[in-house]
Amino acid sequence: MYTKLQFASDYMEGAHPSILSRLAETNLLKSSGYGTDEFSAAAREKIRAACEAPEAEIFFLSGGTQTNRTVIDALLRPYQGVIAADSGHIAVHEAGAIEAGGHKVLPLPHRNGKITAEAVRDCLDAWRQDENRDHVVMPGMVYLSHPTEFGTLYSRKELEALSAVCRSNGIPLYVDGARLAYALACPENDVTLPDLARLCDAFYIGGTKCGALFGEAVVFPRRDTVPHFFTLVKQHGALLAKGRIAGLQFDALFTDGLYKTIGEGAIRAAGRIRAALLDKGYTLSFEAPTNQIFITLTRDQAAALSEKVEMSFWENVDADHVILRIVTSWAVTEEETDRLIACL
Amino acid sequence: MYTKLQFASDYMEGAHPSILSRLAETNLLKSSGYGTDEFSAAAREKIRAACEAPEAEIFFLSGGTQTNRTVIDALLRPYQGVIAADSGHIAVHEAGAIEAGGHKVLPLPHRNGKITAEAVRDCLDAWRQDENRDHVVMPGMVYLSHPTEFGTLYSRKELEALSAVCRSNGIPLYVDGARLAYALACPENDVTLPDLARLCDAFYIGGTKCGALFGEAVVFPRRDTVPHFFTLVKQHGALLAKGRIAGLQFDALFTDGLYKTIGEGAIRAAGRIRAALLDKGYTLSFEAPTNQIFITLTRDQAAALSEKVEMSFWENVDADHVILRIVTSWAVTEEETDRLIACL
Amino acid sequence: MYTKLQFASDYMEGAHPSILSRLAETNLLKSSGYGTDEFSAAAREKIRAACEAPEAEIFFLSGGTQTNRTVIDALLRPYQGVIAADSGHIAVHEAGAIEAGGHKVLPLPHRNGKITAEAVRDCLDAWRQDENRDHVVMPGMVYLSHPTEFGTLYSRKELEALSAVCRSNGIPLYVDGARLAYALACPENDVTLPDLARLCDAFYIGGTKCGALFGEAVVFPRRDTVPHFFTLVKQHGALLAKGRIAGLQFDALFTDGLYKTIGEGAIRAAGRIRAALLDKGYTLSFEAPTNQIFITLTRDQAAALSEKVEMSFWENVDADHVILRIVTSWAVTEEETDRLIACL
Amino acid sequence: MYTKLQFASDYMEGAHPSILSRLAETNLLKSSGYGTDEFSAAAREKIRAACEAPEAEIFFLSGGTQTNRTVIDALLRPYQGVIAADSGHIAVHEAGAIEAGGHKVLPLPHRNGKITAEAVRDCLDAWRQDENRDHVVMPGMVYLSHPTEFGTLYSRKELEALSAVCRSNGIPLYVDGARLAYALACPENDVTLPDLARLCDAFYIGGTKCGALFGEAVVFPRRDTVPHFFTLVKQHGALLAKGRIAGLQFDALFTDGLYKTIGEGAIRAAGRIRAALLDKGYTLSFEAPTNQIFITLTRDQAAALSEKVEMSFWENVDADHVILRIVTSWAVTEEETDRLIACL
Repeated sequence: MYTKLQFASDYMEGAHPSILSRLAETNLLKSSGYGTDEFSAAAREKIRAACEAPEAEIFFLSGGTQTNRTVIDALLRPYQGVIAADSGHIAVHEAGAIEAGGHKVLPLPHRNGKITAEAVRDCLDAWRQDENRDHVVMPGMVYLSHPTEFGTLYSRKELEALSAVCRSNGIPLYVDGARLAYALACPENDVTLPDLARLCDAFYIGGTKCGALFGEAVVFPRRDTVPHFFTLVKQHGALLAKGRIAGLQFDALFTDGLYKTIGEGAIRAAGRIRAALLDKGYTLSFEAPTNQIFITLTRDQAAALSEKVEMSFWENVDADHVILRIVTSWAVTEEETDRLIACL
Repeated sequence: MYTKLQFASDYMEGAHPSILSRLAETNLLKSSGYGTDEFSAAAREKIRAACEAPEAEIFFLSGGTQTNRTVIDALLRPYQGVIAADSGHIAVHEAGAIEAGGHKVLPLPHRNGKITAEAVRDCLDAWRQDENRDHVVMPGMVYLSHPTEFGTLYSRKELEALSAVCRSNGIPLYVDGARLAYALACPENDVTLPDLARLCDAFYIGGTKCGALFGEAVVFPRRDTVPHFFTLVKQHGALLAKGRIAGLQFDALFTDGLYKTIGEGAIRAAGRIRAALLDKGYTLSFEAPTNQIFITLTRDQAAALSEKVEMSFWENVDADHVILRIVTSWAVTEEETDRLIACL
Repeated sequence: MYTKLQFASDYMEGAHPSILSRLAETNLLKSSGYGTDEFSAAAREKIRAACEAPEAEIFFLSGGTQTNRTVIDALLRPYQGVIAADSGHIAVHEAGAIEAGGHKVLPLPHRNGKITAEAVRDCLDAWRQDENRDHVVMPGMVYLSHPTEFGTLYSRKELEALSAVCRSNGIPLYVDGARLAYALACPENDVTLPDLARLCDAFYIGGTKCGALFGEAVVFPRRDTVPHFFTLVKQHGALLAKGRIAGLQFDALFTDGLYKTIGEGAIRAAGRIRAALLDKGYTLSFEAPTNQIFITLTRDQAAALSEKVEMSFWENVDADHVILRIVTSWAVTEEETDRLIACL
Repeated sequence: MYTKLQFASDYMEGAHPSILSRLAETNLLKSSGYGTDEFSAAAREKIRAACEAPEAEIFFLSGGTQTNRTVIDALLRPYQGVIAADSGHIAVHEAGAIEAGGHKVLPLPHRNGKITAEAVRDCLDAWRQDENRDHVVMPGMVYLSHPTEFGTLYSRKELEALSAVCRSNGIPLYVDGARLAYALACPENDVTLPDLARLCDAFYIGGTKCGALFGEAVVFPRRDTVPHFFTLVKQHGALLAKGRIAGLQFDALFTDGLYKTIGEGAIRAAGRIRAALLDKGYTLSFEAPTNQIFITLTRDQAAALSEKVEMSFWENVDADHVILRIVTSWAVTEEETDRLIACL
C-alpha cells in the first residue's frame, strides 16, 4: 500500500495473528456485554497471574488518552493535580484531556523523559511548606510512563524510590504502560509486571501499540482502590458494549506469555538501527534502549531521509534542526530493517 | 458457550463475517494513525455517497456514550443544555456523561420513547418567554434516537417537523443512530440516510449494535459544523490510534449496501416473536416495530421465562410486575427464533 | 427612588443598620485576609453557639448559587448526583451551575416545593434495585431548601424523617437556608438552628436575603465533613479576600439573637397581605406561611396590579393566567404594607 | 487591634470612606436585583466615560479568582487554553480554578512577572507549526496582569505589541487589573484606562484591593464579545443578588476621578520604604515601582523583622533564604510608614 518504508509508529498494522484467529473462532459465540463476559474474565485471570496480584481489579478500555483521563479523574479529588514529567503524554499530547476533567498537570522537568523520586519529594515538600498552599493545587498523585515518551526506562530501583515517596506521602502512583511490552522485551529493563503491581496503585498494560487492534488493560493491584470505577468508565465514554472484543485480545496477549515476548523483534530491530545510525555518524537525540529512536537532523537531512522512510515528526529544535522519530513495532521484519539501514 | 437462549441484546456476538475477513486481509498492511488512513478515507466516501452528502465530515469513534458526549459537548456552548426525551439514553443510561461534560439534559416527556416537534417548540418558547430566562439553562440543541430506546421509529414527517423547529430556532438537531441499521431494515421506516443528512446537523451511524466489533460513525452533513472536532475527539479520549480498525469496519458495512440490509433478519425474527407473544396472550409494553420487544410480566412469569431465555431487565413496573426486553440481532438464526417461540 | 410600591423580592434594600454601623466602626482596623480574621472568628463562635454545634466548621461565601455549587461539588463524588425537588433552586434557577460542576440534579416531584422522606427512600431504593444501576447516576446527597422556593416549611418531623433516610443510606443531607431567617421568625416553623445542626451534614444560613449586604454562612456541624473545603472555595471563586466583610455581617446578625427576629416584620406583613388577598377574593397559588405570597392572576389582572405594585414574575400557567410573587423583606414598613393592601 | 505593624497586603482594611457613606445614604432605597439597578447603571456610565468606551459592556463580580475563571471560561472554547506568565495568578494561586473550568494554563517564562509579545508570538507559531498540533491544546487567549504579581508594569508600547500579536492571531487579550489603581497612581505607568479599552478584549478594574469592600468590574470594550455572559456569571456563582452593592462601590470609585488617585498614597509610601530598604542594605528581590515590595532575607532576618512587622510570605528561595512581601494600601498613613522605616 505504501511505497515508502514505514517507521513512523508502532500502531500502523493490525493485530498479532493470534488475536485475529481468536476473534474468528469466537465470532458467533454470544456473551454478555460491558466486560462481564467469560473472555474478559479469562483475560483478567491471566493478567492477575502474570502480575502475581490475585486481588487485582482489571478493566479494559479502548485507548491511552481515554485510560489516562479516566484513571486520573478517578484517583484525584477536585482540589488535586497530577505530577508528571513536563514531557509526559498527559502534559503535552492529550489535547488538554486532564484539564478538561478539571485537574491541573503539575509538570516536573524531565531528564530523558523521566522524573526522579527526589524531584517528586521536593514538589510535595514545597507544597506542604508553602504558606499559601491552600490557594495552590495540591499534588495528589504521580504519573509516569514506562517506557517514557522518549523510549527510556525506569530502573526497578528508581521505581521503588518513586513508590516509596508516594506511599510516605499518601498519594497514588500510576504508570502509563502504553508501550509496556517493549520494556518487558528489552534486556536493559528490570521492571517486571509483579514489580508494577507491587509498586503502583494503578497502571495500564498497553494493547494498542503492543499487538492488539486496540485496547488497554487498567490494573488496580489492590481491591477497592477506586469505588464505582465501572460507572466512571461509563461516564467517560470508555465502556465498550462488546467488552469481550477487548477482553479476548488481552486473553490472547497473555496466553503462553505472548505479551512478554511480543516486543522482542522490535527491540532487536531498534538495536540494529541504532547501531547503524551511530555507525554512519547520525546524532541520537536521547539515549533510549526501547523501540523508539530519536535523531536530530538538519532540515535538509530530514527532508532527504523522509523521501525514503516515513518517520514521525517529533519537534523543532531550532531554525535549522528537527528531531524525527523512528519506531519499530512488534510486526517489523528483518527485511524492512535491512532496507531502512540501507537508506541511512 | 451458553446453554440458555440468548436474546438479551444486539451486542452479544462478534462482527459480520465480511468485517473479519477485511481485518484478516489487511492485517499486516501499514497505514497512518488517528483516522488519516486510506481505509477510513474509503469508508467516508462510501458513507457520503449513501447519505447523498458529498461535503459531509465523518469521524469514527468507539462507542455510543462516548459519541454522544463528544458531539454534545462540541455542539453546545457552556450556558446551554440538550433537549431529549426523558427516556433518552443520554438522560438515563449514560452515568451522567452529559452532566460530567458540564451540560444539563433538558428532559421532555416521551411517548413510546419519542418527542414531538410541538413539545420542542413549546420548550423553546417557554425559555424565550420566561422573564427569568437568563437564570435558566438555555435549550441549545435537540437529541433524538432513531430507533428510540423503546424500539420505535420517527416518521420522515415527524423528523421534518423536528428539523424545522430546530432550524427556525437556530439550534442543531442531533440523531443517535446506535441501532440505525434496524430502522433501515424495517418496512415501517421511511427515514433514509439522505433524509438524516438533509434534516440533521449531526447524527451517528451505529456500528457496535449493527454488525461491527465496535465503532460509530459521526456524520456532520455540512462542513465546519464544529471547528476543531478532531481535537475535541482526542480530548474526550475518543480518538483511536489505529483509526483504520474502525474505518475498515465501516468500509465493509457500506460495501454493496450491507448496512441497509444487515438488520433484515433481526426485523423478521422480531416480527415472528412479537406475533407469537401476542398469540400466546403476552402483554407487549409498547408498540414498536424494530428489533426490540418489551413485555410486561409478573415477577413469577419473568423468573420462569428467564430460566429458559436470557433477556434483559428493563424496569420495575410495580411490586408485582417487571418489563423485560427481548432483542434480536443481525446474527440471529431462524433456529434460535424457533426455539424462543417454543419456550413462550 | 421608585414611584411604584416594591414587593418584588427580599433583596432590594441594603443591610440592617447594625451591619452598616459595624462596618463603619471597624473600617480602618486591619485584619488578615481570606476569613482568617477575628471578626469572622467571632461570627463563627456565635453561630456555633446558636446552633449548639461547638465543633461546627463555618465558611462565609458571597451568594446562594455559589454556595450551592461549592458545597454540592464538595460533597459529591463524580459518579453521583444530587436529589432535589424539581422546583428546587438548583434544579431550575441556577443556570445549570450544578451540571457545570459535573453533576446531575435528580429531580423528585415536589408538593408545594417540598419532597418527602418516602420519595427520597424510593429514589434510593430504585437505584439500588436497578439492575442497570452502574450505568446510572448514583443518588449521592439530598438538597432541600427551608423555606422552600414556594415559601413553605418542612416540619421538624419531616426533616427528621429525611435525615433518617439519608443516614441509613449513608448520604449527606444539605439544606439551603437562603431565607432561613423568615422560617425562624414564622410561628408555624418548628425547625431550629440546633435541629438543622443535628439533622443535616451541611446547611447554609442565608445572609443576602436576610439583612446582610451579601453573604451566606456554610455550616458543617461535624468536623472534617469535607477535607480541603477552603481550597475548594478558592477554586470555585468563592473565597473573599476581605473575608472580614462577610464575617462581620454575620457577627452582627448573630449578636443578641438578631437573626432569629430579623424576619418577624416580614412575616407579619405577609400575614396581613395574605389575609387581605383572600378577603378580596384573590387566588393564592400555594399555601405558604413565610414571606413569599404567590397569586394566580389573569394576564389582565396581573397587568393592572403591576402598574401599582412591583411584584416578581413566577411562571406562566396557561395562555390566560400567570403566577406573580409578592415578597416582604426584613425592612418592610407597616406603611408600605398598608399601601399595598389598599391597591388590591 | 493588631500590635504589630501591618504591611502584609492591600486588603486588610475596609473601604474608602466615600463608599461607606454611599452605602449608608442609600441603604433603605429599594432597587432591582442582579445588577439591573440604577446604581450599577450609573457606575457603568462612569466607567465607560473613564475608559472612553461608550459601547463597553460592564459586569460587577465579587472577587478576582471568580472573575478570572468566569471571563476565561467565557472567552475560550473547550479545545483552547490560556497563555499566561508562569508566575501569573491564574497559573499559581487560584487553586486550579482555570483547570476546574476545563482549560489548561499555558505558562510562558516570566521576567519580573511579565511576558513579551515575542514570547506570545513564538508560542502561537510553535503551535501552528507543530505537526501534532491537533493533539495539543490550542493557545486561545492571553492573560496578563497590570500591575503584575511582582508589582511590575507593562509599558503602553509593550501592551500595544501584545495586543497586535493577539489581533493578528485572532485571539483575545485579557488583563487582570486586581491592583490597577496602583498602576494608575504610579508615575512610571503610561497605560491608561482608554489604552486598556483600546488594546484589550476584556479587562477587569480591581475593587477589592483598591478601596472597595469587595468587587471587580469586568469591562468588555466592544459589544457582544461574549454572548450570554450574564448567564455564565450566574452559572459560575458570581452573580450578586444585590448587585447594587457592587455597583454603588464602583459608582463611588469612579466619582470625581477617585479611582485614578486612590492609590497615590500607597505609591508614595512604597517609594519611601523602598528607598529606606536600599539605604539600609536590604536586597530587593525584583525591581518594581508599584505598591508591592519584595525583599530577599535570610531566615533569621525574616524572623526578626517579622516580629515587628506583619509581611506576607512570598516564597522559599533556598534552604537559607526567603522572599517576603511588603504591601502598602490606599489606606496607609505616613505615621505607619515612618514606623515601618524605623524598624528596618
